[in-house]
Amino acid sequence: MKYVDHLQWRYATKKYDATKKVPEEKIEYIKKAIQLSASSYGQQPYQVIEIKDPELRKPLKPMSWNQNQITDASHLFVFANKVLVTEGDVDNSIQLRADVNKIPIDKIAGYGEFVKGKLQEKSKEEMFHWTAKQAYIGLANALSACVELKVDSTPIEGFEPEDYNEILGLTEKGLNACVLLAVGCRHDEDVAQHNKKARKSVESIFQTV
Amino acid sequence: MKYVDHLQWRYATKKYDATKKVPEEKIEYIKKAIQLSASSYGQQPYQVIEIKDPELRKPLKPMSWNQNQITDASHLFVFANKVLVTEGDVDNSIQLRADVNKIPIDKIAGYGEFVKGKLQEKSKEEMFHWTAKQAYIGLANALSACVELKVDSTPIEGFEPEDYNEILGLTEKGLNACVLLAVGCRHDEDVAQHNKKARKSVESIFQTV
Repeated sequence: MKYVDHLQWRYATKKYDATKKVPEEKIEYIKKAIQLSASSYGQQPYQVIEIKDPELRKPLKPMSWNQNQITDASHLFVFANKVLVTEGDVDNSIQLRADVNKIPIDKIAGYGEFVKGKLQEKSKEEMFHWTAKQAYIGLANALSACVELKVDSTPIEGFEPEDYNEILGLTEKGLNACVLLAVGCRHDEDVAQHNKKARKSVESIFQTV
Repeated sequence: MKYVDHLQWRYATKKYDATKKVPEEKIEYIKKAIQLSASSYGQQPYQVIEIKDPELRKPLKPMSWNQNQITDASHLFVFANKVLVTEGDVDNSIQLRADVNKIPIDKIAGYGEFVKGKLQEKSKEEMFHWTAKQAYIGLANALSACVELKVDSTPIEGFEPEDYNEILGLTEKGLNACVLLAVGCRHDEDVAQHNKKARKSVESIFQTV
């Protein structure tokens, strides 16, 4: 089955069967897809927090517009973008690149300085949104892995980031909850699964000049 | 071949072979993957502009840090997020949903009102970044389609959005160039293809609570 056919299959699951769990090997696969995601300057400027503790899921639900997916999905992930990418972060990424490619760091240190210069040009706010956008590439890759595995999924923006940042201790780590991903098995009664996919036509999205 | 293996294959192509073109059926497939992308409230709040005219590619190159991919890639796409999502846009999306599912619009009009209310809570700036983030899901899906087709690709943030907005007439259309995607065939001499993929470990990206 091709990627585009897989995409046709998926829908944003509204009601999960809380008795069913996605096998851990599938979760590992989804994590791998996130890890391999492209990111600007290779910075991967985000963390992903898996909320495993059911006692923690409960208070998150009212912070998430009382959506059932928060407690009922097999797995819940919080994508948390870095508020700031530091020079140290850039140094680490350059070191990693040198290590993986077994080349002296001097050979690519110039690239690191270039990246630092470019990041310095960003305002605090631009930096904040830039890192979040990289996290969305990770989110999309997770959705792509899910469709291949026929795992149901729900990207969730309907939550209070500040409450999440507080309860998960993200602020002091320089992180911000930017989007959630619930993953699991649709409930038989989820009416949303019967809806036809409504998308703008290719012609209305694309222009050619 | 599995999605994750495809992801291992890809790299951000630095030098394209300008003599080689990606067949149009592959381009149509990539467009389809973008069209089917998830988006918040199903709004798909962005357009994608294909820059076909080589005479237009030339002036875009200096607006893009003089990167060769702008002129040498087989295809160049500009993802342009909507600066504002209007009530009319929401109405259109609800109408589309009703039409596709052959249900009376009254049945889902309440959802449309809910979405309008939520969008009203966003500041101008939040709206701007929110639509850009949806475009990044489309970008990521395009990259996923490319890897399946073994089409080379380069997501590009290194360009001047204001210059793009002006030359492409995006501002008057309420659009903003937020990210580019070059697609094509790698040049034999592209040294970047020989680099090993450097990624943070899964363990360092993921936390569990």
